[in-house]
Amino acid sequence: MSGRRRDAPAPHAATVGPVHIIGTGLIGASVGLGLRSLGVDVSLEDPSPTALAVAEQIGAGRALGAKAPAPAPTIVVVAVPPDVAAEVTAAALDRFRQATVTDVASVKAVVLAELRAKEADLARYVGSHPMAGKEQAGPAAASADLFVGRPWVIVAAPETSPAAGLAVRALAADLGSHPAYLDAAAHDAAVALVSHVPQILSSLTAARLAEAPAAALDLAGQGLRDMTRIARSDPNLWAAILAGNGPAIAGVLREVRADLERAIVALELGVAGATLGRALVELSDLIASGGRGAARIPGKHGGAPRSFDVVRVLVPDRPGELGRLFQEMGQWGVNLEDLALEHGAGQLVGLAAIAVASGEGRALAANLERAGWRVLV
Amino acid sequence: MSGRRRDAPAPHAATVGPVHIIGTGLIGASVGLGLRSLGVDVSLEDPSPTALAVAEQIGAGRALGAKAPAPAPTIVVVAVPPDVAAEVTAAALDRFRQATVTDVASVKAVVLAELRAKEADLARYVGSHPMAGKEQAGPAAASADLFVGRPWVIVAAPETSPAAGLAVRALAADLGSHPAYLDAAAHDAAVALVSHVPQILSSLTAARLAEAPAAALDLAGQGLRDMTRIARSDPNLWAAILAGNGPAIAGVLREVRADLERAIVALELGVAGATLGRALVELSDLIASGGRGAARIPGKHGGAPRSFDVVRVLVPDRPGELGRLFQEMGQWGVNLEDLALEHGAGQLVGLAAIAVASGEGRALAANLERAGWRVLV
Repeated sequence: MSGRRRDAPAPHAATVGPVHIIGTGLIGASVGLGLRSLGVDVSLEDPSPTALAVAEQIGAGRALGAKAPAPAPTIVVVAVPPDVAAEVTAAALDRFRQATVTDVASVKAVVLAELRAKEADLARYVGSHPMAGKEQAGPAAASADLFVGRPWVIVAAPETSPAAGLAVRALAADLGSHPAYLDAAAHDAAVALVSHVPQILSSLTAARLAEAPAAALDLAGQGLRDMTRIARSDPNLWAAILAGNGPAIAGVLREVRADLERAIVALELGVAGATLGRALVELSDLIASGGRGAARIPGKHGGAPRSFDVVRVLVPDRPGELGRLFQEMGQWGVNLEDLALEHGAGQLVGLAAIAVASGEGRALAANLERAGWRVLV
Repeated sequence: MSGRRRDAPAPHAATVGPVHIIGTGLIGASVGLGLRSLGVDVSLEDPSPTALAVAEQIGAGRALGAKAPAPAPTIVVVAVPPDVAAEVTAAALDRFRQATVTDVASVKAVVLAELRAKEADLARYVGSHPMAGKEQAGPAAASADLFVGRPWVIVAAPETSPAAGLAVRALAADLGSHPAYLDAAAHDAAVALVSHVPQILSSLTAARLAEAPAAALDLAGQGLRDMTRIARSDPNLWAAILAGNGPAIAGVLREVRADLERAIVALELGVAGATLGRALVELSDLIASGGRGAARIPGKHGGAPRSFDVVRVLVPDRPGELGRLFQEMGQWGVNLEDLALEHGAGQLVGLAAIAVASGEGRALAANLERAGWRVLV
C-alpha cells in the first residue's frame, strides 16, 4: 500500500479552472462542491432556476446569469439526464471552443454515436461515468465526497486527444475517485451486467410482492430484503437509463430468459416422478452457475474475495445495546472487516454478523462470551 | 410490547420429553441443542454414523444405538431433506404410535399429499417449517439459538388433532421462535414468493457474471453485491427444495417471464426514436411496480417499514476505525436502528450508513463532525 491517503480528496487540485458545469442535479452539484472545496473556480448553469439557485446556495459554484460573459472554461462537465446528454454536449463543444468537454451520463455508446452524427469536435470530448449515486436526487442531496473511493469510468473516443483524456482523469482524481478505462461498448456491456440487469431483476422480484398476502410477507428474511433493496429506485430516472442502454441490456436479458425458461421446464418436470432426476440436475446446474458468477465479484479493496471469520452475536433490542457492543469491541482493539445486521418480521432481537480477519474469530467470540453476549456458534 | 423477554428461549421448557430427532443435520442438531439447554430429554438417530456422532458430541442429545429400546417419545422431529421427508415421517408415525410427529421440510404440500397417499395417521402429524438456516450445513454448524426470533410456520392438516398442534407450538416457542399458521398450499405459495423465486433470480443475475470480463466486475457496487449474496447457496440442497415446490415456483416464474418479456420488448423499442416514449412508460411502470412490492416488506419488528434518518460517514480503512466510530457513538448514547457498511472494488475507505430514529439524524451528524468524522450530507 502506498503512503498516499485515499480516504480524502487530494488537498491540492491538479485541475486548472475555471470549470463550467451544465446541469446542477445530484452529480453536477457534487462535482462543483468537490472542486470548490479544492479552491477551483466553478461556474454553473441549469435550465431550472430553482436547481441552479440551490446549487449556488450550497456552495457548488457561481450561477451564470443569462447575460453573463462566457466563462472561458478549461473543462466543461455536462451532467444532464442521459436522453439529452448528446445534444447538450454537442452544444457545449460548439460554445466553448477551447474547452475539454465531458458528460457523465450512465450510458456511453448512444451519446458518442449522436455526437459523431452531429460532427462534433471529438478531439475535445471525453465520456465519463462516475460510479456513484444515492437514493435522493437533486442538488440538495449533493456532497463533495460523493465520488470518494468510487470508480470513475473514462471513455475516450478514438478521436479524443491525449490532453483531453488526461484533463478528465485529473478531475476524477481530484474528486477522490479512481479512473477505469473502457471503450463505449465495453462500458455499456459492463454496466448492463453489474447495474442495469440487477436493477431489473430486483424490480421483477419485488413486483411479485405487490399483491402477495400479508402472511407471506411476514415470512420475509434477509435474503428477500437484500434482493429488493434497489427495487425502490426512481422509476423515471431508471427508465431513461435503461432505454439508453437498450441493446446491451436486452442481450443479457435474453440470456436470463433462456435460463428462466430452463428453470420453469425443470420445475414442471420435477412434479412427475420419473423425470425428477433430470429436474434436479438442471436446477442444481443453474444454482451452481450462479455461485460461480457470484464468486467472481471483487471483495473489499478489489481482487478475489478475502476469507474472514464471521462471528454472529445476538443484540437485544434495547436502547444502546448495539453501541455497547461496538464500544466493547473497540476496547479490545478488534478491527472489523465487515458487518451485517439482520432482523426479520416479529423479531425483538437483532443478529450482528461481525467479520474479522481469518483466525481472529475464535478470540473475539471468547471475549464476547466473557462479556455476557450470546454468541451463535 | 409485553414484558416477556423474547431475546432468549424461555428458561423452562413447556415441552415434555422425551423428544426423538430423526436426522441430525443443521436443523435437527439445532433443535436437539436448544431442547437440551432447557433440560429436555432428547434422543437422536441418523443414517450417517458420522453426523450422529458429531451431534451427540456437541450435546444435541443421546444417539440411539441400533439395538436400543424404543425411546417412547412424546414428540418426534423429522429433520431430513425434503425429498425423503414424507417417507421418513410415515415410518415414524408407524413406529411411535403415541407420539406427535412433525417434519421440518421447507415444502409442505407434497409431504402432506404423500402421507395421505400412504394412509398415515394424520391426527398425530403436524407440518413445520422453521424459517431459519445458515450458509453452512451439518451438525457442526448447529446452534441452540438458530430459531430465536424467527418465524416457525405450523401447518396443521384438517385431520391434525388440537393436542398435536399445541405440542409443536410449545416446542417452537421453547426454541425461541414465534409461530405462524398457514395451510400447506398457502405456505408453499408464500415461500415461493419470499424465498424460492428470490433464490432463482439471484442465481440468474450472478450466472451472467461467470463469463463476464474482469473490467466489468471491477465496476460492481453494493447493489450487485446485495443481489448476488444468496447465489452462493448449496446447489444440491436447493435443487431438492425447488423441485419439492415446483408448481408454486413455476407459477410465479411465469409471471416473472411475462414481465421480462415486456422489458425486452420495451428495451428494443427504445432504440427506435419514434417508440421511445412507449418504451419509457413500460420501463417506468415496471420499476414502479417493483417499488410498490418492496415497500410492503415488513421492517424491523414487523408491520410497515419505519422511517429512519440515515447518516452516512466515511470510515478510513485503518485498524480500529470502525470500532472507534461505534465507541464514540456509544458514549453519545446513540441507539442504532440499522447499519450497513459499503465498500466497492479498489476502495480504501468504507462508508457506514447509520440509521437512527427519525429526527435524530441531524444531532448525530453534528456530533460526528465535531469528533472529526467526515459525514456525507
